[in-house]
Formats: sequence, C-alpha cells, structure tokens
Amino acid sequence: MGVLTLSTDFGNADAYVGTMKGVALGVDASLRIVDLVHTVRPQNVLEGAFHLREAWPYFPPGTVHLAVVDPGVGTERRSLVAEAGGQIFVAPDNGLLPAVFAGRVPPGDVRYRVLDAKRFLLDAASRTFHGRDLYAPAAATLAAGLVSPKAAGSEPVLASAVVTLDRAEPSHAEDRAEGVVLHADHFGNLITNLDVRDGRVRALWERAAHVSIEGLDLPIVGTYGEAAPGALVALIDSFGLVEVAKVGGSAVSELGADVGSTAITLVARP
Amino acid sequence: MGVLTLSTDFGNADAYVGTMKGVALGVDASLRIVDLVHTVRPQNVLEGAFHLREAWPYFPPGTVHLAVVDPGVGTERRSLVAEAGGQIFVAPDNGLLPAVFAGRVPPGDVRYRVLDAKRFLLDAASRTFHGRDLYAPAAATLAAGLVSPKAAGSEPVLASAVVTLDRAEPSHAEDRAEGVVLHADHFGNLITNLDVRDGRVRALWERAAHVSIEGLDLPIVGTYGEAAPGALVALIDSFGLVEVAKVGGSAVSELGADVGSTAITLVARP
Amino acid sequence: MGVLTLSTDFGNADAYVGTMKGVALGVDASLRIVDLVHTVRPQNVLEGAFHLREAWPYFPPGTVHLAVVDPGVGTERRSLVAEAGGQIFVAPDNGLLPAVFAGRVPPGDVRYRVLDAKRFLLDAASRTFHGRDLYAPAAATLAAGLVSPKAAGSEPVLASAVVTLDRAEPSHAEDRAEGVVLHADHFGNLITNLDVRDGRVRALWERAAHVSIEGLDLPIVGTYGEAAPGALVALIDSFGLVEVAKVGGSAVSELGADVGSTAITLVARP
Repeated sequence: MGVLTLSTDFGNADAYVGTMKGVALGVDASLRIVDLVHTVRPQNVLEGAFHLREAWPYFPPGTVHLAVVDPGVGTERRSLVAEAGGQIFVAPDNGLLPAVFAGRVPPGDVRYRVLDAKRFLLDAASRTFHGRDLYAPAAATLAAGLVSPKAAGSEPVLASAVVTLDRAEPSHAEDRAEGVVLHADHFGNLITNLDVRDGRVRALWERAAHVSIEGLDLPIVGTYGEAAPGALVALIDSFGLVEVAKVGGSAVSELGADVGSTAITLVARP
Repeated sequence: MGVLTLSTDFGNADAYVGTMKGVALGVDASLRIVDLVHTVRPQNVLEGAFHLREAWPYFPPGTVHLAVVDPGVGTERRSLVAEAGGQIFVAPDNGLLPAVFAGRVPPGDVRYRVLDAKRFLLDAASRTFHGRDLYAPAAATLAAGLVSPKAAGSEPVLASAVVTLDRAEPSHAEDRAEGVVLHADHFGNLITNLDVRDGRVRALWERAAHVSIEGLDLPIVGTYGEAAPGALVALIDSFGLVEVAKVGGSAVSELGADVGSTAITLVARP
Repeated sequence: MGVLTLSTDFGNADAYVGTMKGVALGVDASLRIVDLVHTVRPQNVLEGAFHLREAWPYFPPGTVHLAVVDPGVGTERRSLVAEAGGQIFVAPDNGLLPAVFAGRVPPGDVRYRVLDAKRFLLDAASRTFHGRDLYAPAAATLAAGLVSPKAAGSEPVLASAVVTLDRAEPSHAEDRAEGVVLHADHFGNLITNLDVRDGRVRALWERAAHVSIEGLDLPIVGTYGEAAPGALVALIDSFGLVEVAKVGGSAVSELGADVGSTAITLVARP
C-alpha cells in the first residue's frame, strides 16, 4: 500500500490535481495519495521546495514525493528521480530537488537519475500538462513498487550535474548570513531559508544583533509576547527557520516581500 | 476497491464535503474518494460539467463520478445515473451530464436511468442537502459494487428526455462558431467550450481570423510568447479548448466575463 | 481500516495538514483520512467545534475525530480523548469538545480522559506544532485500533472538570434565547448555535417575532424566496440552525459579525 504525496502550483480551484490522482489510481487503486500543497505561487520553484523540505521527513520509508512546479514544461528540460533518506522524489530538473535536500541530506547521499520519460508518458500526452501525462504515471508506478528508481531512470547523475538555484542555500560571511524569503504563511509571516538546524546559522543566531530586510533592521525576539502589537520582529518558527512576523498583524502586507527573491540578512553583534 | 470522485459547488471552507465522505465510508470504508473540484461558482451547472468533462477520461474503468451542482434541490427535479465510456455518473437531471459528455461520447452511447431516490435517501434527510442525504449514499453504493446502475435506477431514459442546457454545445455557421466561457482558471484565463478535438471547430480554427468576446476582436496565437505582455489573445489550452488569456496578467480581471453566459465567437478569414 | 477525520485552523496553503497525514500513515498506512475543515479562523475554538458537531454523526462507528484549534499550545494545557456516540474524539482541553457535544450528547454520556501525552509525543517534538508531534500520532494509533481510549488516557475525567466556553450553549429566558454566531459560510450566511433540534429553541422559534443581531430586528422567513433581494432575514438552515442571510448577497459583508462573539437573540411574540 504505497504512499504518494503531491506538491504543485496548480491551485485548489481546478480539477488538475484530481485528474493526476485518477491517472495514479489507474496504475494502482490501493495507493494512499496525500496533498502537501497546491497553492505554491505559479512557477515559484523555491517555494515549492520549501514545503516539501519541511514535510518529507515525517513520511514513512518508501514514500514517493512528486513535486510539479515546472516553468520549463514544453522545453527540453529533463526530469529527475532521486533517492534520499529512504524515500523517493520525482520532479523536473529545475533546482527544486536540491533545495528540498539543502541542509537536510548531504549532496553525496542523494542518488539522482534522469527519469526515463518515454517509458511513462501517456499516449495522448499534451505538451503542457506533464503533471498528468508524465509525472503522475511515473510517480504512481514507483509508489506501487512496480518499478525501482534504478529501473525508472538512467545511470546515476552526479549532484553537481543537477540544476541548482542561486538562492536555495544562504551565503555566509564572518559576521552575517544572507538568506531569502521562501514562503508567506496564512498568518502573513515571512518564512526564510535561514535554518538554525544548520550549525553555522545556529552559531550566528546566538550572537545576532538584528536581521535586515527591505532596508529595515528588525529586533530578534524569543516569542511574539516579547514585542508590542504592531511591531515587526524576527524569531525562530516551529520548524527552526528564521521568520519575520508582525505581532498581531501581517508582515507580508506591511513589507510586501517577494517570495523567492527578497533577501534577509542575519547580522552578528560587533 | 472502488474509486469515487466528487465535484461540487460547496467550497473548501465548510465540512459539507467531508460529511459526504463520512456517509460514503459508512457504506464501504475501502472506497478511494478523490476531490475533483469544490469551487464551482454556486449553482453554475455548466462550470461544474466543464471540470468533470476534462477529468473523467483519466480515471480507471468502473470509477463513479458524483457531481452535485444543484439549483433545483428541494424541488421535484429528478436525479440520474448514467453509464458511458466504462464509467458511472450520478448527478441531478439539470443538464450537467449531457454537458459532461458533449463532444466526448455520442448521445446514443450514454445509458441514462432515473436514480431510485427512495432507495438511497437517508432516514433523517433534509430538503436542502441532498449531496449528503441522497447522492453520497447512492454513489458510494454504486462505487462499492453493491448495486448495479441498472438496479439503482428505473428503465433507461432516452438522451432526448434528459434536461439539456442551451449553451452546453457551440452553435455553428459557415464562417463562425459561437461558444461560451465555462471557467476562469486560477491564472485568470477564460476557458471556453470551443474544443478543437471537435472536427468542425478544428477546421474553423485552422482558418480563423480572430475571436470576438465582449465586443473585442482578439488575435490568435500559438503560444503566450508570440504576443506582448499585457495583450489579450486567444490560443488552444492544454486540453484542446480555445482559451482567452492576457499575457502576464488576468483576462478575467480585464474582461469581467461571466462564467456560463459570456459568448465567444471564432471567426474565419473571409 | 480505521477512519480518521481532521479539523484544524491550519489553512489550505501550507503543508501542515499533509505533514500530519504523513505521521498518521507512518502509524498505519491503511488509515482512511478525511479532511473536515482547515479554514477555521485562527484559534477560534467555537468555530472549529461547529464544523465537527455537524459532521461527526454521519461517520461510521469507531471513527476517530481529531480537532486541533489550539490557542494554548506551548502552555501546560492538557489534552483529551473522549468517547461518545460510538465514536472517539481527540482535542486540546480548551472547550472544543463540550461544544461538539452540546445539544447532541448528554454530558453524562461522554467519557472523557486526559490523553497520555508522553506516550505519543514524537522524539523531536517542537513546542508549537502539537498537531504533528502529539495529536497526529495519538489519533492515528487510536484509529488503527492499536490502543483503546482507555489505555490512551488516564482515569475518566468528569464532564464538569473539563474546560467549557461561555457561549458554547445559548442562554434562555421566558421570552427569548440568546446565542452566538459560530460560522460565516462561503455564501456569507451567518450560522448560529440556536438549534431548533433543541426542544426549547424549537418551541421559542414557533412563536418567535424576530431575531435581534447587531442592533437590528430581522424578520423570520421559511425560505429565501419569501423576502425581497437585499433583505436581511433569519431562517432555519439545512442542519436545523438559525441562520442570518442577506437574500442574494452576503450577510457577513453587511453586518460584519464576529465569529464566536456576535450575539443573536430570538425574541418571542408578546
């Protein structure tokens, strides 16, 4: 009884995701299919990776995670199947998967292969809906255990030969680390890729003076309760990520941050 | 292990759909239940049909599709069970099912029956929530294989005796075809019922000069990239349907089209 | 094949709920997991209770219902497991469960126990995501039948020792009953906790002159069709609850009611 998760930018107001599930259940009607998120901003690869990165460690061994945020659909971009941490991942080769593993799995411990698209593509495939026509049948076949990751792909691809995104990982200097906003949650908090589960970020956080974002220097607090209503603050969220919040309000409304590009800098005390 | 899909206008902010699933799992806890769409504009029968029409061919044989967009609930409107293409469909007799099959299954190949409501209606049924009280138990009993479509309904009903909607199918003239906007997707694109998988529409498209919508004549392009940002254009979407899009923007915001009634005309070159 | 339902205020735009499902499927991959609602206003315990109260009677015996609307997460608040009506309920001890049973199950027929949190808490638990770290494993273990409610909790707790909310049940006087708005549905109708399935409310409704809400006296109608478009009216919804609606419009937009605190009074004819 295989488990398959879906993460896309297809929204919740169309039957696109349901159609992918129809294809998957046609492969194996016993699959357990779990929606992770479908409201990723259109074509925002880093935001898609953020959700899957936080969720996958909580799934049982052997789970197949399919992520379709795919600005390159219709071009010659290839697709990947990856094995890491006892689970299986399917996505376009556009930087999404390395961002999923960033800070979680050392690159050398991920086994990437190029997905054998011809093997899985539906007969009447369109050029623009590979979620339904390629990825759903491939991921379902893997989740059903009808094919191994090895047999679903080519020879292993080196992690260094896989597409990566510039801002997937923070950049570090002696007295600061620069990350990027990855998500605005439904409370309006800005979640970033500065992750205190990473030793370097943790060490800097412990001697941090403030964070800088959109030209503002924001104080660091332990909990919301330490600041006045309306204040913009930085704190650690329940995942271990540095988050910018407006106490009792919406940071994204006030700062207008751009998911995937707005920089945030954690600055140490002098 | 039967598969059951749900398409409704109940939204995603209430427990209405979850309650229907509770009723269905009470019939057979092994059912696989798939949400197609629940954000159909309230009582917009044609929009509900649109989603199911594009999705059902991708489901395994024997799947039961339940669609509840039901302006007539509480009146004497009857309900239908239909067999087509190896699958089973349950819906009110309000024009939804013929629109699901339009251009897909010849009317003579659909076997309609009037659903035997008395057989399935819950004891404590309300007059206004037949999704829970009638359709969920009926569709679940069919999906579980506990009753055949034949036994669930009356004698076959002729397709000509089933309610149809005026605009479900395009009207054709020598040099033009007139359809209707069926859906605005989450990018703001207007999806219509002009379907190039239909030979007559395909032939017209190949010699088309422009489309007319809301008093505007829009150019036809092959891909978004052929037009300037901000331009309104017509093109074929990934399903084969004529779509009106604003490049890099929202056509529905600019044109304010009315789902189910705004006309679109495909006009041939002179 | 156990059934587990989820009701939360986590929204549909994050992977929080999907992550809880990953934890649950890790306990038992055969569980049937049903989403009731995830768009409860943040920390609005009464609104969360409303949805579950209307849904649970339609689920099969033995279903486990998990409700996480949890303003007290991170504090010493305890958690409850309850048995009522042949089903099992898990939630924080914050008034949610008594509101779920209000008017449905006599307090003496609910068997409450304090959940043994230490038994279920994940090793790497955070202080702020007990939905994933405590409640998902506990509810899944119960739904899988791997532990009984008795073994999952302490000695029974009296209903009088469980936290209750002031406004969970209406207050009654000779000629009136005062309730509260519990939910604004996706049509903008205001749903209240005045429930005509309760004999006292039923008797009052039958001799009611009007309802008062936000300083306005609204007429009572049998159906929307009895009033002019734009009129604000009170009627009985499909569950049996008194509802305030604007005919052809949105009552919540016009009245700006506050879910969980705006009062509504049903007033008898003199």
